[in-house]
Amino acid sequence: MVKEWDIVEVLRHSRHDWLNRLQLIKGNLDLNRFDRAKAVIDEIVIEAQHESKLSNLNCPLFASILLKANWEGHSFLLEYEVLQESEILTINDVVLTSWTNSFFVCLNSAIEAFQENHLSITIDLQKDGIRFFFDFNGIIIKNELIEQFLNDPNSNEMNITVKEFFENELALEVFMPFI
Amino acid sequence: MVKEWDIVEVLRHSRHDWLNRLQLIKGNLDLNRFDRAKAVIDEIVIEAQHESKLSNLNCPLFASILLKANWEGHSFLLEYEVLQESEILTINDVVLTSWTNSFFVCLNSAIEAFQENHLSITIDLQKDGIRFFFDFNGIIIKNELIEQFLNDPNSNEMNITVKEFFENELALEVFMPFI
Repeated sequence: MVKEWDIVEVLRHSRHDWLNRLQLIKGNLDLNRFDRAKAVIDEIVIEAQHESKLSNLNCPLFASILLKANWEGHSFLLEYEVLQESEILTINDVVLTSWTNSFFVCLNSAIEAFQENHLSITIDLQKDGIRFFFDFNGIIIKNELIEQFLNDPNSNEMNITVKEFFENELALEVFMPFI
Repeated sequence: MVKEWDIVEVLRHSRHDWLNRLQLIKGNLDLNRFDRAKAVIDEIVIEAQHESKLSNLNCPLFASILLKANWEGHSFLLEYEVLQESEILTINDVVLTSWTNSFFVCLNSAIEAFQENHLSITIDLQKDGIRFFFDFNGIIIKNELIEQFLNDPNSNEMNITVKEFFENELALEVFMPFI
């Protein structure tokens, strides 16, 4: 799933997403649900604030893969939230991005396509590093691929804690220290 | 004004533009101007349709510089419209983009900054090629730079007609044949 993205294509996807959001506002206005339309706008603004905080995290490679994840035809829908404002401090963006890419590939192979599969990433800036909570909810059909991935050398180099691992949930905590 | 754009930065600018549009909708809703809010949405959708048609023109380089023009700190505001739906036919994207880039640089040097300077580009697909109308309205203070630009070898290779050239208007028609 490696793909070169140019400006035209990035903006095409982004425009599509924004027009969908606009459609949601317009649909509510057409039904005279003015309060709901305002609430939709507030939700969109919050989503955009998370995007913005992600973009300011000082991890451009990691931010890029998260920003375009839902345009790449994964079998899961990605959501993320960034709990604090950014710091000037830096983590190893290359290592984190490479591991996250591999995790996405693994997840795509391990889960049942066309189901309600959600991956939520919570990003928690702490004193000495950043804690990432990867929380998958959906249908895992190939447990062994995930076990294999978690035991492979790339994962071993990371500071990973498996919090939950069931048929329909996988929760990982990854800690990346500041460098 | 050459700048490498990555996904994070492109989406940062795009998000900023979309949040401004959203603010315009929200402002009208807060004042109970529901019809005006709907009209704003309709205007945004039309603008997005022009962006979309531009992106489908088969000129990715030219589309890129137009899509990001208003993020690059030019002394003029760019608007554009694409009159027809795209065709599979192709023009020389590299030549057009190079000339347009030079035109933007020339215009930035020739006009008075911090004034109401507008450049409108109308793109008209025709049978044998694409006709581009570059229409500048604003304050031109260095006519000689524009004359020089229009007489230089790059411009001579293009099919350019000067329609208007006054202190506060410059209108050029550029024809690019299909290849």
